[in-house]
Amino acid sequence: MPLFRDRAGARAGAAAVSGWVAVAGLGPGDPELVTPEVTAALAGATDLLGYGPYLARLPARPGQDRHETDNREELSRAEHALTLAASGRRALLASSGDPGVFAMAAALFEAVEGGPADWRDLDIRILPGITAMLAAAARLGAPLGHDFCAINLSDNLKPWDVIAERLTAAARAGFAIALYNPRSRARPEGFSRALELLRAEAGGARSIAFARAVSTPEERLEVTTLDAARPEMADMRTVVIIGSPETRAVGRWLYTPRRA
Amino acid sequence: MPLFRDRAGARAGAAAVSGWVAVAGLGPGDPELVTPEVTAALAGATDLLGYGPYLARLPARPGQDRHETDNREELSRAEHALTLAASGRRALLASSGDPGVFAMAAALFEAVEGGPADWRDLDIRILPGITAMLAAAARLGAPLGHDFCAINLSDNLKPWDVIAERLTAAARAGFAIALYNPRSRARPEGFSRALELLRAEAGGARSIAFARAVSTPEERLEVTTLDAARPEMADMRTVVIIGSPETRAVGRWLYTPRRA
Repeated sequence: MPLFRDRAGARAGAAAVSGWVAVAGLGPGDPELVTPEVTAALAGATDLLGYGPYLARLPARPGQDRHETDNREELSRAEHALTLAASGRRALLASSGDPGVFAMAAALFEAVEGGPADWRDLDIRILPGITAMLAAAARLGAPLGHDFCAINLSDNLKPWDVIAERLTAAARAGFAIALYNPRSRARPEGFSRALELLRAEAGGARSIAFARAVSTPEERLEVTTLDAARPEMADMRTVVIIGSPETRAVGRWLYTPRRA
Repeated sequence: MPLFRDRAGARAGAAAVSGWVAVAGLGPGDPELVTPEVTAALAGATDLLGYGPYLARLPARPGQDRHETDNREELSRAEHALTLAASGRRALLASSGDPGVFAMAAALFEAVEGGPADWRDLDIRILPGITAMLAAAARLGAPLGHDFCAINLSDNLKPWDVIAERLTAAARAGFAIALYNPRSRARPEGFSRALELLRAEAGGARSIAFARAVSTPEERLEVTTLDAARPEMADMRTVVIIGSPETRAVGRWLYTPRRA
């Protein structure tokens, strides 16, 4: 059954309850990349929930409760936020980057799906942010300037066969590719295998960029080729961008033309 | 040859010349989704360049020159901005969404590549913004919550065979898919053919969402299936999101689990 919604309707519905849960994208790190919408939600929340390092980016406010959890506890953190919202609190789940890209928004809806039926009627707000691959692309030039894919290499999310199939399909069809969580603790060999597979499919001369901690004082950018790429060029704070067949350097920049 | 750069180095280099060109992402429409970084650049620019409707979103400032151009004149607009920067002006190219996603950043680097050698040393800044598919995903739930592709259906950018190959590859490998510029004037039949191809590959029950003018007063969201989707549900202001095999509804939301 088709679902129709307009912005006014969504806002009117939102006004019917006092509690809410917002999943807010804090962007890649620089406060200058946090949207005013997220800043306003941070000011209006009664409770902040999140992974410690993300909460550490947010100043303390009198009367605002903070709930730090481990990075692996996404589902229980989401359930906690929903429970708070159901009790009338204004709960903000802090997410790095954009909450809809390999971050907290999907975890929240998994919690809604598995939770009490009335959670589906809660006032839920997903507040977009600047996701890591687009912050990285901006600093590198425009490597994602034409068709591209985003793939999460994180551990335990899916079988290696699925990752290999997606990498192969993306490279073969001429997409640029952004890899999130390239090197995870539980699957340290995954990124090496991904590089091998991409080399075989795209050739060793293909451009690859490593963008670490973009927009923070620890930012580091490295542009090289698949032949020269080494797994240790990436860590947990790195997003990796592999160019399309058309991606090329101009001066110090890397870009993909619009007609590729 | 690998290229290394750090943020401090890039900023120090930037200080060596007085002119600059910034390609600034204005986001999907709502001023609350414009980053402070972009707001500061708008205040510091001597010249604003862009497609009329984008410039119309920006308040006039005394002493700031405005250069409106047609939407089709991206390359000449980029060349104009580079010429201004080379003469010491601070030129801001207004881009909707994120400049690196089917927008002005790639056009800028095409102009740099084809222009005088000294354009490569100009102070060029790409300022990220909230791109349409991520604003749309946030309003819909989390349909891009796991691996996804972004494909531009715009006219004249590439042969239909390339589009068909990418749509097929993306659907077959289980990606969610975001389509930009689904219905273009020069290729009105393209989106019908894309829907047919996706139906054949993914089945008629697959979720599809039409998100028009997200975050503006004209916002309209529609969620349905490939079987029920009709080309006229999209126009030039619509981004289309096709779910992965795991994408599903929970209450009024559409989301893709993290393990898909």
